[in-house]
Amino acid sequence: VALAGPALACYRAVDEMCVALGHSAFGAVDEVYPTLIPTDILGRCGYFTSFPHTVSMVTHLVEDFDLIEEFRQANAKAPPLTVPRREALVTPEACLSPAVCYHCYQAIEGRTLPERGHVVTSVGRCFRYESKNITGLDRLWDFTMREIIFVGTEQMVSARRQEAIEHAKAQMELWDLDCSIEGANDPFFSAAYATKTYYQVRSDLKYELRLAVEPGADGEARSIASASFNLHENFFGKTFTITAADGQPAFTGCAAWGIERWVLAAFTQHGFEPARWPESLRSRIFA
Amino acid sequence: VALAGPALACYRAVDEMCVALGHSAFGAVDEVYPTLIPTDILGRCGYFTSFPHTVSMVTHLVEDFDLIEEFRQANAKAPPLTVPRREALVTPEACLSPAVCYHCYQAIEGRTLPERGHVVTSVGRCFRYESKNITGLDRLWDFTMREIIFVGTEQMVSARRQEAIEHAKAQMELWDLDCSIEGANDPFFSAAYATKTYYQVRSDLKYELRLAVEPGADGEARSIASASFNLHENFFGKTFTITAADGQPAFTGCAAWGIERWVLAAFTQHGFEPARWPESLRSRIFA
Repeated sequence: VALAGPALACYRAVDEMCVALGHSAFGAVDEVYPTLIPTDILGRCGYFTSFPHTVSMVTHLVEDFDLIEEFRQANAKAPPLTVPRREALVTPEACLSPAVCYHCYQAIEGRTLPERGHVVTSVGRCFRYESKNITGLDRLWDFTMREIIFVGTEQMVSARRQEAIEHAKAQMELWDLDCSIEGANDPFFSAAYATKTYYQVRSDLKYELRLAVEPGADGEARSIASASFNLHENFFGKTFTITAADGQPAFTGCAAWGIERWVLAAFTQHGFEPARWPESLRSRIFA
Repeated sequence: VALAGPALACYRAVDEMCVALGHSAFGAVDEVYPTLIPTDILGRCGYFTSFPHTVSMVTHLVEDFDLIEEFRQANAKAPPLTVPRREALVTPEACLSPAVCYHCYQAIEGRTLPERGHVVTSVGRCFRYESKNITGLDRLWDFTMREIIFVGTEQMVSARRQEAIEHAKAQMELWDLDCSIEGANDPFFSAAYATKTYYQVRSDLKYELRLAVEPGADGEARSIASASFNLHENFFGKTFTITAADGQPAFTGCAAWGIERWVLAAFTQHGFEPARWPESLRSRIFA
């Protein structure tokens, strides 16, 4: 969806709030990553075995003049797209990022971290194909994720993740939003372990911040997961040979905000009437 | 590539300069668009017949449990990605945006514009597969494009495009960069007409701003196209039934900056020694 006007102002305000949190509370460094991620990187993270149905793969025509010409002529007429031969498309070498933080771990592959660990904040477009469930702003195939990423010792990462949850509660007060924070069972990173059972035991690996949106067709309350606070144990530390200051494979965790969902929930709860918005935000959203 | 530190500060400074230009010189409205673009939209713009070899198409697994399971098991081992059956991947319904401005035209499909026309600025990731030529920062598959987009009467769009070129010259002085602005023959939008000959006649449809970078292996001077200033005549106005204030199909044009190329050229020319940068930029790049 295209964003403009108050919705775009809200989108920016959410992101700026998260960046400010990253800088002030965690001393996070800004990084900007590509949107494409090599299939090999996702493969090493076990993504294709854990979430094969959600991954968006990128292909292009093979470098073969006859196949390109055949494709070109097949599409000289009106849409839809026609692919006359499947072998005209390469086996995907790149995917669309399903989360921002994979790039961060890969970028420090092989490194030994200092005492303070490594804390980054980054925003990027992320992609999860969700089939028929793609409707409106609450479940976009193509969405914007702001993350604060923590890499370091188990103690450091665990403490930072907890602090991020506390800060998120304060954010909710600033925005005057009806929300809940609760444990979740389907972590983005169940890729980390083959046995889902493990996750059912350690239920504290993922917390979701859920914001209330409009009720369903039959009046039941609805909320959408709009941020998550995750621990991945030392999965990425092992996968990318990142060593924490204690000499052990680094632990990682992240706080991740789904910005369009935040926008959706804020306008659902506060509406388009400036007077109903918290005073601290009103002038930024309705400039 | 991941950007951080002075390179990221430079990336932001370039973008902010272009946004400021859009706002102050052209009264542009900010919009944010998706990264994905429906294949049908690109198809209507003739992209698959004009640039089939550069387009990045997005696919995902079909909704078939057996095919998903087969794919999952085939990728349980280490990379590279294995696609056991090509029919497990859907025919692409979406592509990656090759330029920002397609979204803008589609967003105002069917509209009649006011006297002042429609001027938008937007930044987004764009994708053009360039085969073996993808090397370093100067030819990325996945790059960032800032555009100022003009939609209106022929006179309005033509005048705005010319003003954008003049402003770009002033930008170059601010950045103290060695550059040239010259007509180019291979417009992004040759899609607009079947006969390339037409473009050879009207050589003023595209101007490129080229920034000097390091010489080639055998010492020859090199430069990279880092911005372009384009007219598309009324191709998009006709394609998307956009009517200008004069009752005719709208003309369109755009100024587009390739931000990573700008960063590459700026560091190539000024280096990593702050003292060599123009004073007006120094403190922003090396904070």
